[in-house]
Amino acid sequence: MKIRFGISGLGFAGAVLMAPVMRQHPDAEIVAACDPNGDVRTRFGEAYDIPVFSSLQEMMDGARLDAVYVASPHQFHCEQVLQASARGLHIIVEKPLTLSEEEADRMIAATENAGVHLVVGTSRSHDPVIRTMRGIIDSGEVGRVSMVNCFNYTDFLYRPRRPEELDTALGGGIVYNQLPHQIDSIKAITGQRIVAVRAMTDKLDPKRPTEGNCAAMLTLESGACAIVVYSGYDHFDSDEMHYWLAEGGRDKKPNHGGARKVLRELEGSEADLRRTRYGFGGPISKSMESGNADRKQPHFGVMLVTCEHADLRASEDGVYVYGNDGMREVPALVGRGAYSQGDTIDELHNAITGKAPAMRDARWGKDTVEVCLAILESSRTGMQIDRRSA
Amino acid sequence: MKIRFGISGLGFAGAVLMAPVMRQHPDAEIVAACDPNGDVRTRFGEAYDIPVFSSLQEMMDGARLDAVYVASPHQFHCEQVLQASARGLHIIVEKPLTLSEEEADRMIAATENAGVHLVVGTSRSHDPVIRTMRGIIDSGEVGRVSMVNCFNYTDFLYRPRRPEELDTALGGGIVYNQLPHQIDSIKAITGQRIVAVRAMTDKLDPKRPTEGNCAAMLTLESGACAIVVYSGYDHFDSDEMHYWLAEGGRDKKPNHGGARKVLRELEGSEADLRRTRYGFGGPISKSMESGNADRKQPHFGVMLVTCEHADLRASEDGVYVYGNDGMREVPALVGRGAYSQGDTIDELHNAITGKAPAMRDARWGKDTVEVCLAILESSRTGMQIDRRSA
Repeated sequence: MKIRFGISGLGFAGAVLMAPVMRQHPDAEIVAACDPNGDVRTRFGEAYDIPVFSSLQEMMDGARLDAVYVASPHQFHCEQVLQASARGLHIIVEKPLTLSEEEADRMIAATENAGVHLVVGTSRSHDPVIRTMRGIIDSGEVGRVSMVNCFNYTDFLYRPRRPEELDTALGGGIVYNQLPHQIDSIKAITGQRIVAVRAMTDKLDPKRPTEGNCAAMLTLESGACAIVVYSGYDHFDSDEMHYWLAEGGRDKKPNHGGARKVLRELEGSEADLRRTRYGFGGPISKSMESGNADRKQPHFGVMLVTCEHADLRASEDGVYVYGNDGMREVPALVGRGAYSQGDTIDELHNAITGKAPAMRDARWGKDTVEVCLAILESSRTGMQIDRRSA
Repeated sequence: MKIRFGISGLGFAGAVLMAPVMRQHPDAEIVAACDPNGDVRTRFGEAYDIPVFSSLQEMMDGARLDAVYVASPHQFHCEQVLQASARGLHIIVEKPLTLSEEEADRMIAATENAGVHLVVGTSRSHDPVIRTMRGIIDSGEVGRVSMVNCFNYTDFLYRPRRPEELDTALGGGIVYNQLPHQIDSIKAITGQRIVAVRAMTDKLDPKRPTEGNCAAMLTLESGACAIVVYSGYDHFDSDEMHYWLAEGGRDKKPNHGGARKVLRELEGSEADLRRTRYGFGGPISKSMESGNADRKQPHFGVMLVTCEHADLRASEDGVYVYGNDGMREVPALVGRGAYSQGDTIDELHNAITGKAPAMRDARWGKDTVEVCLAILESSRTGMQIDRRSA
């Protein structure tokens, strides 16, 4: 069975990252797309040879779909998930699910009442190396998890941005857009709920006034703890500690301060640069078309998982197991399509066909949003936020 | 002025790490030593051509001293600091100062009443790279500190041990013996007090039943936070992320699980192996005699300091400053003697000669012990420990 997808939103997530993977996935096809922007919509429709529409409702009226990929801006996620559920369509919704617990509850109710499957993604928790780590832990050979240490130092805040991406109230900043990769990876690796949150977030550049760095300590159900460190200030680059591979798995050259330099020397507008670089048909778009060719495994900074009998860490193409007798490498458990986006499609397909329930469903997405909100609250108050009773 | 030192305790800290550095330091001389063990005492006395004694009191009776280096086991620190203070002698006391707040108070009172200077050390906070980072921060060029991220993955728990070193109640384990390096470094780099502690410690090997790993989040006065991660289980080795240099600054070959293997294959007793390897005249003892020759800067795992305008990280021989315009390297501010132990002597000498007050005095040492105790308490309760009112 091939899932017949309509893509809602032809920005970076929808048209650049997901579409080329979805087109090549053995269990999916793209049968329609919609976006309010006429230019990108037309170009995408021609490139993919599919009908395109200006709104989700028109797309659902005009095309026969099994599922919708909601890749619109954050603030439309809830409305569009409700609309797709009402039509009985399955859903992949780009992370974060939403920024509000109340909206999350409506999305949970809508999908569960309609009996449709929803997967939140793609987050880096869909990476094959994360699933591989979970498999090693589930096998029992490394004993219980004691401590997870995640850190990532990037240029996130200096990639060209739309103004709302620099406004936390509108869903901007690293807490909503980068930490969910680490939070979801911790949840996926350990299979545990986060029951307490202590965090500090900071804003270090008044010209880009949203959270750009964070240190957090998350307590898991078992009493194990996870550390999350993130900085998006284009200073140190932690990919130096990951074999100089970029997040997507391709080779990377050291370029400290490079993203700041581009913005400093920019003559046009930042929003234009964003469109050129991250838009459909741009350089990243073209690079994604090649699938997994020349790609090592994707990753999100460094994650070190300390278990009773071994530490786990992503290698270039799998997972290093540092055990009592030395180190060995386990190859990554790859999915049916190209890395990560393909794994997200696998998850929905497995749910629809009854092979395995979706791990990252709407309740999962709500939980992740709550952890993000707890991070912001803990940073404001300086206190640990208890989620045991939640 | 040369400080005339008597060394109390000829174990690893006193005879192996400090003595060769003290002998070559321009502002110090070793004029006597004492140890209850007759064999090591005799060999040391012959090698250094100095009188040796079986107890601190006899040494203070029999030699004309300016200062004592208290390098005896933890449980004798308080008694010996009180004895040396009563004679008006200055003191370097090996970390941790003590394991008890009550003892710390007595040591503070004794040294302050006697008007003698006390330095707690050597901790890795005495490393030249730590002082270099502090200098960069104090210059103002990188703005305020937002976040410190320290992690270290070693074979600490599988180095050959005496039984009490594996018993927390007797001062064993990583909390008292390894975390102070990170805690003191955080204090030295930022110049700030730690006002809240959330931590998780764990014991992963029932055969070595003391804390072997820890994840902690420490809140500083300014609201900045520091992450401390440590694992001593001989699995992953974080020196891979520090140019494959060993803690002392010499080249290191990857040897995952190597310390466990030695213990597994050991035919004699672990205590004997400990003496052979770490004792006076053993291989490390001989290597320390060479001073700084062939040594890069010492370090303690990885420390990443995120400031407003730059991240700081130790390089092989200094500090990398990852700023807004890219990365540059600042050479380490080295002291007058060999690294770290020499810097500890510098600190006492500067205090005695009025050049600069001792940073790591008895109050500093008490504060560090309190942070260690708060780490254990937070791990027991799962709560954040507030030190603001302390």
